[in-house]
This record gives sequence, C-alpha cells and structure tokens, in this order.
Amino acid sequence: MSRLEEKTVKIEKLFTGKVISLQVEDVELPNGNMSKREIIKHPGAVAVIALTDDQKIIMVEQYRKALEKAIVEIPAGKLEVGEDPEVCAKRELEEETGYECKEMEWLISFYTSPGFADEIIHLYIAKGLVKKENPAPPDEDEFVNLLELTLEEAEQLIVEKKIYDAKTAYAVQYLQLQKALKK
Amino acid sequence: MSRLEEKTVKIEKLFTGKVISLQVEDVELPNGNMSKREIIKHPGAVAVIALTDDQKIIMVEQYRKALEKAIVEIPAGKLEVGEDPEVCAKRELEEETGYECKEMEWLISFYTSPGFADEIIHLYIAKGLVKKENPAPPDEDEFVNLLELTLEEAEQLIVEKKIYDAKTAYAVQYLQLQKALKK
Repeated sequence: MSRLEEKTVKIEKLFTGKVISLQVEDVELPNGNMSKREIIKHPGAVAVIALTDDQKIIMVEQYRKALEKAIVEIPAGKLEVGEDPEVCAKRELEEETGYECKEMEWLISFYTSPGFADEIIHLYIAKGLVKKENPAPPDEDEFVNLLELTLEEAEQLIVEKKIYDAKTAYAVQYLQLQKALKK
Repeated sequence: MSRLEEKTVKIEKLFTGKVISLQVEDVELPNGNMSKREIIKHPGAVAVIALTDDQKIIMVEQYRKALEKAIVEIPAGKLEVGEDPEVCAKRELEEETGYECKEMEWLISFYTSPGFADEIIHLYIAKGLVKKENPAPPDEDEFVNLLELTLEEAEQLIVEKKIYDAKTAYAVQYLQLQKALKK
C-alpha cells in the first residue's frame, strides 16, 4: 500500500459564515508535487429515523435554497457547539416534528461529501414516539411540512425524486433491509 | 400544506474555485422575514458499486484533506462540464481502478448535503469487470490504494470507521439488502 497523506503547507481562510466556512489549503502530494484543496468546514449534524408505533416513518418537507426546490427528508439539524449528538437528535426531533421519543439509538455516522467538506451526520433511530403538548419551536428561519409515510409511500417518493438526499435514501434502504431480514 | 418557497432577493458570489464555488443569498422566507443562505455550487459526481465475478466489491483508499485522514470509498469522481453521468461512471471506474465493465446500470441519484450544497451523486452498479491492459491514469493530484472486499470485510471497515462516507455506507447497505432479498 502506498503512502497517501497530503501535507498542509498553507491555509487561507476565505469565508466564515453562520453555517459553513471556506478555506483553501496548499498541500504537498505523496509524490512531492503541490496542489490546492478547497475545503468547507461544517459543525456536523444529526438525522433521525423516527418510527411511529404503526411503523410509519416521520419526514419533513422543507425548501432547500441550494437546490431551489422543496424535498422530503428525515428530521435533521446541525450540532450546536459542544452539543452531544444524541441530545441534538432529541432536540431536532422535537423542534421539527413535535414528537418526543422513549428510545433513541445510534445507527451509523458518515461524512456527506468527503471530497470537499468535513460535514458528518450522526444517524439515529427513534421509537416510542409521543406527541408533545408544547413542543420547542423550529428555528425562526425554518419552515417544514410534516409527513407520516409508510415504507411503500417513501419508496414512491424516491421514484418521484421528492426524497432526494443521501441520508434519507439511506434511511429508506435501512427500513427495506429490516423488512427483508424479518421475512 | 403550507407554502415553503424562499425567494431570492440578492446573490453575492464570494469564491470560484477549481471544484466548488460559494455564494451567499439574501432570501425572503415564507413568512415575509429575511434570512441569508450560504450555498456551495458543485458540478455533481458519480459513484460506482463495482462487483467482481466472485462478488467482491472494489473500493479505493484515498486521503481526504477535508477530513485529514484516509478513508475507504467506492470509486467516484466529479462530472466534467456537459458529461453524461454514465460516461463519467465508466471513466472514473477505469481511472481509479483499472477496470472496464460489461454492464453499468443506474441505481439512484441523491444530493449529499442539501442544507448548503447542490452536489448530486449519481450511483451506478457495474458488473462484468475486466482489468484493462493500459487503463487511463487517475487525475494527477489523485493517489489511491485499490481494495477488493467481501461484504463481510466491508461491514468490518464500517465498524472500524475506515468506510465512513454516505455513498459508501449506502453501497454496503445496498449489498446487504440484495443478500437479504435472495434468502
């Protein structure tokens, strides 16, 4: 196996925003040549596969400005500074859907775009959902429509390209796998 | 269902790089309030689940500067301007692994980080792999180690956090699902 590491020679910080920041790094490649890497720093996020007692999956329809359209996703949100991912998962579930849960179990974590970003998503599964009477409100710039879908309905939304992002595609496939393993 | 669309009021282009560009948009929210969205533009990408005749999956170990570590991923790469995704999938498979394939089938496309980026990945499955004698070389700033893994080996690399990105986690789960459906 050959050596792969790229050494940092210079970091130029170009933008610091509310959510992301951008830096360009001069790197020394394994063969000694130089290159540049454009890198987005992100605080990380959580996402939740929330299942009702009758096996429906809770999703939120949300406008995504980067895509200029609304898509349907599992509930998700960014980590606050220093926030424990499981605490964040419970908070985002309540804020986006109005549900609390009795069980919250970690499933997997993955980087979303390792070619240019350090964003990581910690994926949880929530069961024993109970609607809260006075749930914490969503962020003030966040508007969502709540959906409760059967697995078949979610599969249809993939065909229709309404479910169209990696974490939600992973979540639907996870439920397909659980169903196949039960048979 | 409530209206979700966010209207663009102003676009400020802050950075244009080799791979990504960054713009900040002033938007009018559905309730009439204003907010800002930080948006990364990306050309889109393909990824390939490449299966050998003895059911091994081809992966590449690659240093990811954004993560400051090497991880193991399915072969993938960015779309050239105007490039057909299937053509790109065949090109990236050859450049990164040295394999041609007899069958290349589209599986699903998904956005990787809809909260801040328009990157989309088109995922294909390749079968009938044949090692080329003089394959096209990788990009000059790309260094990879080639791996051929059983499903069990890939599952172990997820546990070890060597397989650690969304498209590759999706690919491993896809193979788990196919195996479960065959039983």
